[in-house]
Amino acid sequence: MVGVDVGGTETKAVLLDASGEVLAQRRGATPPRASDTAQRVLDLTCSLVGELAEHAAPVAVGLVVPGIVDETRGVAVLSANLGWSDVPFAPLLGARLGLPVAFGHDVRAGALAEHRSGAARGAADAVFLPVGTGVSAAHVRSGQVHSGGGYAGEVGQVPVEVRGQRVRLEAVASAGAIGQRYRERTGNPVAGAADVARLVEGGDPAAAEVWDEAVEALGHALIWLTALLAPEVVVVGGGLSQAGPLLFDPLARRLAADWSLASAPEVVPAELGDRAGSLGAALLAADLLEHRNPVINRTEER
Amino acid sequence: MVGVDVGGTETKAVLLDASGEVLAQRRGATPPRASDTAQRVLDLTCSLVGELAEHAAPVAVGLVVPGIVDETRGVAVLSANLGWSDVPFAPLLGARLGLPVAFGHDVRAGALAEHRSGAARGAADAVFLPVGTGVSAAHVRSGQVHSGGGYAGEVGQVPVEVRGQRVRLEAVASAGAIGQRYRERTGNPVAGAADVARLVEGGDPAAAEVWDEAVEALGHALIWLTALLAPEVVVVGGGLSQAGPLLFDPLARRLAADWSLASAPEVVPAELGDRAGSLGAALLAADLLEHRNPVINRTEER
Repeated sequence: MVGVDVGGTETKAVLLDASGEVLAQRRGATPPRASDTAQRVLDLTCSLVGELAEHAAPVAVGLVVPGIVDETRGVAVLSANLGWSDVPFAPLLGARLGLPVAFGHDVRAGALAEHRSGAARGAADAVFLPVGTGVSAAHVRSGQVHSGGGYAGEVGQVPVEVRGQRVRLEAVASAGAIGQRYRERTGNPVAGAADVARLVEGGDPAAAEVWDEAVEALGHALIWLTALLAPEVVVVGGGLSQAGPLLFDPLARRLAADWSLASAPEVVPAELGDRAGSLGAALLAADLLEHRNPVINRTEER
Repeated sequence: MVGVDVGGTETKAVLLDASGEVLAQRRGATPPRASDTAQRVLDLTCSLVGELAEHAAPVAVGLVVPGIVDETRGVAVLSANLGWSDVPFAPLLGARLGLPVAFGHDVRAGALAEHRSGAARGAADAVFLPVGTGVSAAHVRSGQVHSGGGYAGEVGQVPVEVRGQRVRLEAVASAGAIGQRYRERTGNPVAGAADVARLVEGGDPAAAEVWDEAVEALGHALIWLTALLAPEVVVVGGGLSQAGPLLFDPLARRLAADWSLASAPEVVPAELGDRAGSLGAALLAADLLEHRNPVINRTEER
């Protein structure tokens, strides 16, 4: 089984044996946004699959991409960052490879992987909340991820109020936004959220302010998903999940202060790191061969 | 089939034939909060079932109550308003009636009823958002309501910021809160939200202020549930849903202003009114006989 995860900058591919063990992996630079990005993503995917096939011939391939994905039709509906719309990746890649192809969404695939073999292992239901270049969420229930026609989980788009202004959650709380907001406020050219985290720990007040605003905004998402879904576990992934107690302590305090019901979930860091998407893609491929459908979309419910 | 819905003040019972047609209905006053409320609710339920049985002998009974309900164990975990905790209603009522008893949650049962035969008919997924004495939500997906161990949907408990203060959503946006906040602000002894709605239409500025704050708070819930779940339809129920355009127009404007993705749900009034819970209770009973489980809880997922 091969799983391929097309990220905003990097594409990761992983080869698993039948028992789910990782045999090999490859990475490549995701083609930049252009008129032929989808074609070049297909080329890159075929090339990575070819390299991995030298270790062991895959019996199926899973491909996952960001943006709006309709799993039922196997179509990438929209990616603002990669600049495509309505690309039927599943049939296109299947024809190129001559193999069964499962096609899905990077975050929902990551949620599946964290649920089957990561931080949400054993939980009856869980929410995966990756905080990286964007912020999104995926709800796993009865082993299936909710897709909502491809649109479920776009919490990064919710307007929140910060410093008296209404901005989208991910313009405050994504790892990218944290670095950018600190640069804008101080002129200090930090590389990203990890630098800001170090500055917070070193006592930099501007860093603490930017960080607190991000955590406050993520706290809104945490409270609302707890109220609506009452998951047992919330798995925070993406780059920001590596911040440790600087992130998880205030989130836990927020839940304790603002959520009085007995349903407060555990909030834990992801275990699979940036491989969650590619491992999840391989799970989609394995499930395809076993005629299991790990994603609940709308079309098939009709 | 009989369905019984224990409300905060009134208990409603409905008798359905095998095709789902309503043959008869009865109502009774819910016993007040006391040490023996649960016992007296059982007495009342048996009495209502007995009256309805004069029309046609029921083959099963569904009972739904408010608060925290664990459908799998058939237990009412907690009701702050009715003052009980850990009452095993399903076996207690089953023993009293000598009939199969399905036990559930009033809002989740109402969601089922609106999905099968009300305003969410035909939708692949839907959220039921009753705004009455409290505010809660239930997500129906693939025909099943998500329970989250009994805790899913408690959106009324989410803190929101109103006039610079953090208060629970249902302390601002429930039908009860709207009446109370207007009384507190003006001294005008209105009976409830319907009176406030009339005052808004008559141009009363204090009423408009209270109303706008409620709608603003409900707008938060609407945006977050849209972002997390991307339902096709949001069915607003409870007393407030009778306010018509005064409620639905600003909610639609809020979605249009704050949600740019193509996933914005239709927001529509409930069709089954205050019978949604009892009709849903009867559906639970019918599903019990057919060995279908319309509620996804945690326990059975383990």
